[in-house]
Amino acid sequence: MKKYDAFLLDLDGTVYWGKEEIPEAVTFVKTLKSKGLPYLFVTNNSTRTKEAVADQLSGFGIPCTPDDVLTTSIATASYIKARKPNAKVLYIGEQGLQQAMQSAGFTYEEEHPDFVAFGMDRQITYEKYAKACLAVRSGAAFVSTNPDVALPNEHGLAPGNGALTSVITVSTGVKPVFIGKPEPIIIDLALEKLATTKRRTLMIGDNYDTDIMAGINAGLDTLIVHTGVTSAEVLKTKAVQPTYALNSLSEWTFHE
Amino acid sequence: MKKYDAFLLDLDGTVYWGKEEIPEAVTFVKTLKSKGLPYLFVTNNSTRTKEAVADQLSGFGIPCTPDDVLTTSIATASYIKARKPNAKVLYIGEQGLQQAMQSAGFTYEEEHPDFVAFGMDRQITYEKYAKACLAVRSGAAFVSTNPDVALPNEHGLAPGNGALTSVITVSTGVKPVFIGKPEPIIIDLALEKLATTKRRTLMIGDNYDTDIMAGINAGLDTLIVHTGVTSAEVLKTKAVQPTYALNSLSEWTFHE
Repeated sequence: MKKYDAFLLDLDGTVYWGKEEIPEAVTFVKTLKSKGLPYLFVTNNSTRTKEAVADQLSGFGIPCTPDDVLTTSIATASYIKARKPNAKVLYIGEQGLQQAMQSAGFTYEEEHPDFVAFGMDRQITYEKYAKACLAVRSGAAFVSTNPDVALPNEHGLAPGNGALTSVITVSTGVKPVFIGKPEPIIIDLALEKLATTKRRTLMIGDNYDTDIMAGINAGLDTLIVHTGVTSAEVLKTKAVQPTYALNSLSEWTFHE
Repeated sequence: MKKYDAFLLDLDGTVYWGKEEIPEAVTFVKTLKSKGLPYLFVTNNSTRTKEAVADQLSGFGIPCTPDDVLTTSIATASYIKARKPNAKVLYIGEQGLQQAMQSAGFTYEEEHPDFVAFGMDRQITYEKYAKACLAVRSGAAFVSTNPDVALPNEHGLAPGNGALTSVITVSTGVKPVFIGKPEPIIIDLALEKLATTKRRTLMIGDNYDTDIMAGINAGLDTLIVHTGVTSAEVLKTKAVQPTYALNSLSEWTFHE
């Protein structure tokens, strides 16, 4: 195992399962902390604020401040800010997206926005879709937090943000820029935030199609951990393999 | 011009514009009536009941009863009924769809429906989408009233039913059977309702991509009338031409 100077970690299936921590991951992050190795939690969740995520992780005994969390909502705000610092944005999403847009200093604008920013919104309405479609048809740039098509809930698989976004895509014929995994955009932003480079950084996650593909797409070494979505059997079927595959993060060897 | 025994007519852009009748179309339908030639109004609108449509047309002086109207909601009910007379259906849509499903005698069922029937719903919610996705993932047949991606309103083009439907399609990976134009299903049902055949029936409409393509797809002769969506210039660019193209329905010659 190579020596890495910085680590990007997925959340669900990698450091916790729903409301339960993964002990080996807790120990792993504590080790990163004690060694002074920078890390960032990179999540496709756009509905929660970084404070809410940090609170949850702290509750698991994982050393984490809000600045250690990069949600797709924050990444979406960074993406827009790099293109237009004082952007007028029509944003549709839950608290995580709203807070990210407001913290970035963007003006909420329905009539002539520079950007339409769409994220998971369980309060979605036809009126919100209609406003977004009109703005996209009028030339607003169209960004969406993440392309996940399904989201597990207590009943089964409900629609994810990629599915909700498709109303605007199908109606206008304009495809959004997706910010989240497996797109490399969020990984590039994570590297920037940690002031590290792709060669010195390892991307860690349990889901081949999102976490590992994001790392591969961004040019990072990747570590898949079989504590979540992708089993070792399924992994075998993939044409491009991750750099490392482990059953749990306790198997990782740190260089002194 | 050939002699036809039955006529299928689109509504918006063909017999009226929004809240205003097209005088030549009113005269045309009155002539059909006086000659005893059967006709049916075939509309992709799924939100209104056939009674509401007949009332509107009667208000324009067009001879019309509810039985002269085939909406995509009624067509969807007929399609399901032909496959399972006592179907349990999870239906999502406005009054037109609700009434059509209830009149057909279907039971509304969320847990284990035989069919998910989706139509334009300006009260759409995430919960409705989640229920539909679960049912489709559990094997319910998936039908949608019409594939229109955009719907004009006072501000511009808002999402149509085809765009709203895409949430379920993208999330589950299951494509719906679309009932409305340009699909031939609604035309076949119209022929059945009028007890006529494709060779003896003319499909009339203003929109090449929906009305005329539906006629062509179902094997009927078609008449495009340039009172709505498709101009003569745009029509020239189409590979398959309608049987007739007229500036208005006053140019139609009836055989004695």
